[in-house]
Amino acid sequence: MNATEINKLINEISKLPGLGRKSAQRISLYLLKNKEKNLLPLVQIMTEANHKIANCEICGNIDMVSPCSICQNLKRDQQTICIIEDISDLWTLERIGFYKGTYHVLGGTLSAINGIGIDDLNINKLIQRIKSQNVKEIILALSTTIEGQTTSHVIVDKLESLNIEVTRLAQGIPIGGEVHYLDENTLSTAFQSRKKII
Amino acid sequence: MNATEINKLINEISKLPGLGRKSAQRISLYLLKNKEKNLLPLVQIMTEANHKIANCEICGNIDMVSPCSICQNLKRDQQTICIIEDISDLWTLERIGFYKGTYHVLGGTLSAINGIGIDDLNINKLIQRIKSQNVKEIILALSTTIEGQTTSHVIVDKLESLNIEVTRLAQGIPIGGEVHYLDENTLSTAFQSRKKII
Repeated sequence: MNATEINKLINEISKLPGLGRKSAQRISLYLLKNKEKNLLPLVQIMTEANHKIANCEICGNIDMVSPCSICQNLKRDQQTICIIEDISDLWTLERIGFYKGTYHVLGGTLSAINGIGIDDLNINKLIQRIKSQNVKEIILALSTTIEGQTTSHVIVDKLESLNIEVTRLAQGIPIGGEVHYLDENTLSTAFQSRKKII
Repeated sequence: MNATEINKLINEISKLPGLGRKSAQRISLYLLKNKEKNLLPLVQIMTEANHKIANCEICGNIDMVSPCSICQNLKRDQQTICIIEDISDLWTLERIGFYKGTYHVLGGTLSAINGIGIDDLNINKLIQRIKSQNVKEIILALSTTIEGQTTSHVIVDKLESLNIEVTRLAQGIPIGGEVHYLDENTLSTAFQSRKKII
């Protein structure tokens, strides 16, 4: 019914995360109704991004250089590595800006349902990195979902023999959280990990 | 904080209708994490769409040919023109498939708030089209919003002297609509336009 090229464009756009067919149609129309202003700049930026952006050979971040600007930056603590699931976590932490070490991007968490095993995650490179580099501390900053916690355990197992400090983020009541709205697991964790203040 | 090219990509994607910065970040990451599989096919299809898709010189539709395949199709009733706001309305009507005439895409509705006046809509071409072509009926299929109805009135004014049949879509209770959920305007319109059945 629509011209083939329009349908192809809608199909390709509807594959993007979070978009359905309706949004893809709307976006396609927006792009096609004013090609000079809307479509062409996007094509150009995507083409440039394709040429210029690469994965960091060390940590798995994406950047215009490899090793990425964080792995290259000697002002950052290269002896501390924060393990994260995804590049979006790196962006979040960098936006907040208090963390001054380096990262290691796993590329997901172990998940039987999604068929993600140990070899699908960027773990072997992490072990190599620790062995070849002088690393002081590994900070596990994975989600506190079942998948995230399983992944943390597996990593801890692998790191045990390496004689290195491994920490994980504190778990408890989120700041601004109201106790009566919190779930059982969070509350019991917060109780167990309670801190002496006087 | 992010590499310039990544930020440029996120900015450009966040301009797309319905997308905010968060979704743009998520889409950018999806594209950049697997450039061969995700980014390149999209760039290619967008480039092809840019070359192959054009606006129909007669009705304002977008297609791979101009005049578009509907304006060229002699099996369709070329003497009936359905006036619509946007190409997405054309897609909706074509998907349902009962309408066998041609279209005329206005490209919006009159709107003081959005600064859209008569000259911004594709109305002059419509008048030319009616004068140069043998047209039997004009069907107004605009929204029943204030803007849509104002636009309908203005078009009716312009067509009055042309000695041509002009109709508009019926207004009333939508099929599947429950009377007690309907708004006052719909109900009073439905009462006024009630039909004798016996």
